[in-house]
Amino acid sequence: MYRVSNLIQTSYCTRSTFASCKRLLSSKTNEQKQYKTRKINKLLVANRGEIAIRVFRACSEINIQTVAIYSAEDEGQLHRIKADESFKIGRGLSPIAAYLNIPEIIKVAVKNDVDAIHPGYGFLSENGDFAKACMDAGIVFIGPTPDVIYRMGNKLNARQSAIDAKVPIIPGTTHAVDNLDAVRVFVKEHGYPIMLKAARGGGGRGMRIARNEDELEEAFQRASSEAKAAVGDGSLFAERLVTQARHIEVQVIGDHYGGVSHLYERDCSVQRRHQKVIEVAPATNLDPKLRDRMTSDAVRLARHVGYQNAGTVEFLLDDKGRHYFIEVNCRLQVEHTCSEEITGIDIVQSQIKIAEGSRLADLGLEQDKIKIMGAAVQCRMTTEDPANNFTPDVGRIDVFRSAEGFGIRIDSASAYTDAVISPFYDSLLVKVIAHSRNHQEACAKMVRALTEFRIRGVKTNIPFLLNVLHHKQFLEGSITTSFLDENPILFKFSPAQNRAQKLLSYLSEVLVNGPLTPLGTDIKPMHIKPELPHVKRKEIPNGWRQVLIKEGPAGFAKTVRKHPQ
Amino acid sequence: MYRVSNLIQTSYCTRSTFASCKRLLSSKTNEQKQYKTRKINKLLVANRGEIAIRVFRACSEINIQTVAIYSAEDEGQLHRIKADESFKIGRGLSPIAAYLNIPEIIKVAVKNDVDAIHPGYGFLSENGDFAKACMDAGIVFIGPTPDVIYRMGNKLNARQSAIDAKVPIIPGTTHAVDNLDAVRVFVKEHGYPIMLKAARGGGGRGMRIARNEDELEEAFQRASSEAKAAVGDGSLFAERLVTQARHIEVQVIGDHYGGVSHLYERDCSVQRRHQKVIEVAPATNLDPKLRDRMTSDAVRLARHVGYQNAGTVEFLLDDKGRHYFIEVNCRLQVEHTCSEEITGIDIVQSQIKIAEGSRLADLGLEQDKIKIMGAAVQCRMTTEDPANNFTPDVGRIDVFRSAEGFGIRIDSASAYTDAVISPFYDSLLVKVIAHSRNHQEACAKMVRALTEFRIRGVKTNIPFLLNVLHHKQFLEGSITTSFLDENPILFKFSPAQNRAQKLLSYLSEVLVNGPLTPLGTDIKPMHIKPELPHVKRKEIPNGWRQVLIKEGPAGFAKTVRKHPQ
Repeated sequence: MYRVSNLIQTSYCTRSTFASCKRLLSSKTNEQKQYKTRKINKLLVANRGEIAIRVFRACSEINIQTVAIYSAEDEGQLHRIKADESFKIGRGLSPIAAYLNIPEIIKVAVKNDVDAIHPGYGFLSENGDFAKACMDAGIVFIGPTPDVIYRMGNKLNARQSAIDAKVPIIPGTTHAVDNLDAVRVFVKEHGYPIMLKAARGGGGRGMRIARNEDELEEAFQRASSEAKAAVGDGSLFAERLVTQARHIEVQVIGDHYGGVSHLYERDCSVQRRHQKVIEVAPATNLDPKLRDRMTSDAVRLARHVGYQNAGTVEFLLDDKGRHYFIEVNCRLQVEHTCSEEITGIDIVQSQIKIAEGSRLADLGLEQDKIKIMGAAVQCRMTTEDPANNFTPDVGRIDVFRSAEGFGIRIDSASAYTDAVISPFYDSLLVKVIAHSRNHQEACAKMVRALTEFRIRGVKTNIPFLLNVLHHKQFLEGSITTSFLDENPILFKFSPAQNRAQKLLSYLSEVLVNGPLTPLGTDIKPMHIKPELPHVKRKEIPNGWRQVLIKEGPAGFAKTVRKHPQ
Repeated sequence: MYRVSNLIQTSYCTRSTFASCKRLLSSKTNEQKQYKTRKINKLLVANRGEIAIRVFRACSEINIQTVAIYSAEDEGQLHRIKADESFKIGRGLSPIAAYLNIPEIIKVAVKNDVDAIHPGYGFLSENGDFAKACMDAGIVFIGPTPDVIYRMGNKLNARQSAIDAKVPIIPGTTHAVDNLDAVRVFVKEHGYPIMLKAARGGGGRGMRIARNEDELEEAFQRASSEAKAAVGDGSLFAERLVTQARHIEVQVIGDHYGGVSHLYERDCSVQRRHQKVIEVAPATNLDPKLRDRMTSDAVRLARHVGYQNAGTVEFLLDDKGRHYFIEVNCRLQVEHTCSEEITGIDIVQSQIKIAEGSRLADLGLEQDKIKIMGAAVQCRMTTEDPANNFTPDVGRIDVFRSAEGFGIRIDSASAYTDAVISPFYDSLLVKVIAHSRNHQEACAKMVRALTEFRIRGVKTNIPFLLNVLHHKQFLEGSITTSFLDENPILFKFSPAQNRAQKLLSYLSEVLVNGPLTPLGTDIKPMHIKPELPHVKRKEIPNGWRQVLIKEGPAGFAKTVRKHPQ
């Protein structure tokens, strides 16, 4: 077991948060009993894009006034106008920093009689200091208490909590080890492969995999010397390397009176560079007994730490059916939608009502009332170009047509014709969620929906999503987190046709510049002598070319291509 | 009881259909046992608008190729491009007649290797001749057999079937009566109020209500003389007038092997001039025992007539909890979506698979597997102007922004920015369906969604829908078909602001015509002497007014208002 004293030495635990971590570990607070109910009339979302809109929608349905904040770069974003009021923040700050500026956000909230703040995901959503600042300003923070956020945000603390709650963790040495023999003792018990990690952290350095005895010595030496170079201490931890694993997470929700329920699990194994791309709920082909163990482990852990509001307990599930706790996300997840679809429960509204002081039972969230109904899939549609190594694309959306119909839910950010995709934030454009009676049906609905989208002007990852959705292994629900790496075929794309746009471009080119061959080619234009209709008028009327040269914006004439004569 | 011989005299039964009616009534066919399964690879929808798109979506999800037909007026409609292929029909015919031209539709289908035709709702959907023409051409008709369509399309036959299946009907005289005494015998047994109807039909004429003995004589005389004038026969039927009734209909689905299940009921009591506007499922505040009686009555009737594929059995439910059979709709209903939401079953896909020869059990449609999950509401958003007596509005949609988010399903027709709403067809623009855990939550989601729509250029009935959705009686689920008539407040609307559009119009007016007062007013324009910035250039550069006069379309200059100097 890690000792509390160890925590001081790790790079995970920052100085500012350590005090509260320690306090929490040593004594349990009694605040659960004393929770004061409070009606929320006005709510600010300290976030942007689709999640801000998601929360506004939830508020509108339960008659809560909504307040948006937006950076200078987000002036034209939809989340701004989906709220009842909106305020510009972060003047002079970078686009990201604008949404991280705690004092200003609190100031806007206080000045405008905001009762509660929802942090969404990302940005300040797992920042204990922000939760505390809300509390200090008399504003309800929609999420767990600052103490729980600090504690779960620290990976070693979270691991210790799991140990205390008897939730399985990835087996590892209980102390830092500085020689091969100590590692061999561990291997004798747990077997290969193992992961060696710098005991004092190293930001990814000092990490090596040993798959067998032959690899051990070199891996140990390299990891140790890297660790020494990075943090001045060559001692290591060894833990079992979980391979061929599924990423499965359990949605939990707790009230302020000790009640915790779960909304079953999601499988988020389709990951590209550790970013989730497609999520499904419930996890496919999951033994019901294993589901019971995982969900009850998640609930037990949440109860143990006094978790309030919505959160996610993440596990790795290995190919032998063993699950290991990874971490707790103290916030709403991007993929919460899948759980909403299969349970019928509005997680965001539940969050708000719990923050108001409702008990789980008031919200119909007693465990025995929560049932799995069918299966759901979520795709994160982004403005990334899959054919170009997923480079984020920016610019104006020329054409945008969305999908609709039975079983399709759309949660979009600023996705509409003429919307401008900026380079300043993440590239999530639309969350598409399909819900049907089983995984295969939901996938069929998703394919149909993705095929219905028409988006021009920016590239999207739709071709990549379709590749995954058509893959046998995905449809059978038998994939692990290595799925994308092991199937390079998923990254092969047939070039988009986009015939309509090309035709329109060609026509306007001909209208303005005459019948030319494409720019940049050496081919001579065809010598066309159009047969003009016989007209009495002496002069040939001006065409669009002449009008644009004469009357267009200053300097425009120069940009119009010279007519070759 | 009506005798078969009576049927000949009624106007309901056309000569051409009578033979098959009689055949069906006299002997049960054995075709159920002999159904030949057939894979459907290509399906044509003999319809337009949202229902055509709805069916295409269902087909895409189960890998069936789709074929659209469209009239000349519908060239720009979305249903045309949502199919894999589309064919223009009805050259020289009226817009409606184009979709009713059976020989041409069959010809298109045969020529293009179509396996099956889905008729949608309206148009040919309950036309036995069409079903028969499909059959004769070797094409699967997605619906019941022609015989069943003929039989249920004839109201007297349908009523007789209900009697035979021991399904309660509205009590009425068993024979035509030609004198007051015979009516009084009926009243003695069943009481007032009663409805008097021309025995041989009269297209709405020859119908009178008598609420008590005092009204009886005059009602009888008037009805009788109207009937005589209309069809040459003054004899009448009397039946109990069901007042304060709810319109409740049961969705049934039968396979080709005698299996029939129901998908529970919908309440369609919100009707304006007998047109359904808002539908909910399941019916609110319905005693579970009554639900059982109604659904089992519906299934029994469907079994009795050998009903295959999806259909609806409509009932009136009076204020004493008695339900009466009205009619069977031998087709998909506009409001089938509500039943899909609460059961999770794709009714259109089930229709197709049943037509292919699947058994209910193959499709997970055994009765005990079909459960009610939550509540759904559907609103029919139309391009009618509620403030102007629901006159259909036509023209170009300048702005169209749809709703999305959790619990919201959108099934739209041709609803997008720049779509043209024509006067030729019904005015359904979008079906919005909300699904949540209970009726009140579903209504809250619906209000939120309707409020999210932004539609400019044509008027819609959204303000009316919102009035209904905000009404206490509707939210409580305690309304009857008289709801709209009894609540004139539902037809009061605050004028739309539409500020953004007005501002844009004003700005472009000023840009082109200068700072004028509105056309048609006597007010003189303000005498504005703008302080021009000092520029070296001699001439004042042209503004948009000059550009448009000089370069705009021929004759444009005349339309630009003279600048008053």
